[in-house]
Amino acid sequence: MKKKNKKVNAAILIIGNEILSGRTQDKNTAFISNWLNSNCGITVKEVRIIPDEEKIIIKNILNLSRKFNYVFTTGGIGPTHDDITAKSISKAFNKKYEYHREAFSILKKYYGEKKFNDGRKKMAKMPRGAKLIYNPSSAAPGFMTKNVLSLPGVPSILNSMIENCKRYLIKGSKVHSKTLNLYTVESNISKQLGMIQKKYKKFVDIGSYPFFRLGKIGVAVVMRSSSVTKLNKVKTDLLELVKLKKIQILKI
Amino acid sequence: MKKKNKKVNAAILIIGNEILSGRTQDKNTAFISNWLNSNCGITVKEVRIIPDEEKIIIKNILNLSRKFNYVFTTGGIGPTHDDITAKSISKAFNKKYEYHREAFSILKKYYGEKKFNDGRKKMAKMPRGAKLIYNPSSAAPGFMTKNVLSLPGVPSILNSMIENCKRYLIKGSKVHSKTLNLYTVESNISKQLGMIQKKYKKFVDIGSYPFFRLGKIGVAVVMRSSSVTKLNKVKTDLLELVKLKKIQILKI
Repeated sequence: MKKKNKKVNAAILIIGNEILSGRTQDKNTAFISNWLNSNCGITVKEVRIIPDEEKIIIKNILNLSRKFNYVFTTGGIGPTHDDITAKSISKAFNKKYEYHREAFSILKKYYGEKKFNDGRKKMAKMPRGAKLIYNPSSAAPGFMTKNVLSLPGVPSILNSMIENCKRYLIKGSKVHSKTLNLYTVESNISKQLGMIQKKYKKFVDIGSYPFFRLGKIGVAVVMRSSSVTKLNKVKTDLLELVKLKKIQILKI
Repeated sequence: MKKKNKKVNAAILIIGNEILSGRTQDKNTAFISNWLNSNCGITVKEVRIIPDEEKIIIKNILNLSRKFNYVFTTGGIGPTHDDITAKSISKAFNKKYEYHREAFSILKKYYGEKKFNDGRKKMAKMPRGAKLIYNPSSAAPGFMTKNVLSLPGVPSILNSMIENCKRYLIKGSKVHSKTLNLYTVESNISKQLGMIQKKYKKFVDIGSYPFFRLGKIGVAVVMRSSSVTKLNKVKTDLLELVKLKKIQILKI
């Protein structure tokens, strides 16, 4: 039986002045996008980085949650005054911002009654009805509200939690990719590459990306498709072009 | 005479499937944002990463160019079929997409008449009336259309061109920042930090970011303001808190 090609997409909303200001380099986009494609067949179609400002968070949550199947937010769910993701999502969806009973009990157990201060209690406040995303590394859970999954900004903690998002996600068809690294310049193959892309327009996306390696210039040609058969056809066409132009392939 | 606090902002629009798919880690956001703040006093208020699709590019160009003083695009100005930034911006602003005379002559000179093929010629096609952003490393210029400045995606080339954007930008007030790296956890200082933020709400933004260093947990408290005087006041308040709580400061 032929497997149906099912498209499921997502957006990532990175909440944090530290990323916008250039102080911190975002690492979560690449991690989440790779994980979603490999494990769930979900394609990230848009990423936004915005400041820690309530109005802006609300506007973007509403906009992205309407446009995409899922929205992943990162950042702003810690104990300090600038952590306003949960409150903003509550407002966006008109839900009460309140203690989540299970989250509260997880955190209370983790810190112990005595050390469970107001900052730590704040991490149990979520939009009413939120589903928890368990956190095996530092206890404070993420949460899902409607189609929005909220994760922390610290990459090591986020990475430890991502598997726990799986239960909430509908799977799509995985996008497979092949890469040919060619020792040539883009303009030497741009015309023919355009023709190959036109031929397979509906099934395969071809991207070309210059690289520099050991003092030599090259082009990485990346082919992406949910059909492995189509991908192999494009690769065959591309190898013919490589042969014709006598281009060296870099094996890595 | 008191210097007026002038706010100038910008957005960054990263055009490229390779960033969205997680194949390539974006490095341009941090670089552009740092450069804009240090050199021009311009604050980046939003970043979007979108695919190489004409309709999506047009929509985002129009939206961001209305919302912010400047928009910086990266990617999609090379010679291949997936480089559609210039064409999309032309359509967005209803400008003819045509050869830019000076860009054409720069590229022709750089490659020589014989090697100046169609792919390379494509890099001289821009929205009518575009102003050039010269490229000292690989010749192909970037360009400015209305308030949108288009740069290439390859970080080393982009970095070499950024100084040439300066002539087109109105300067704002630089945002200064101070960081205190404290060996503590966020929830130990969250309450007092919130109070300090409240006190200086109008002038200073305080962010707190957990870090891990040599097996120890810490919090980087980042203060940002266009007033150095106000920044020093916040630092004094913060140092009092540090003393009160007997927190060790990490000097780096």
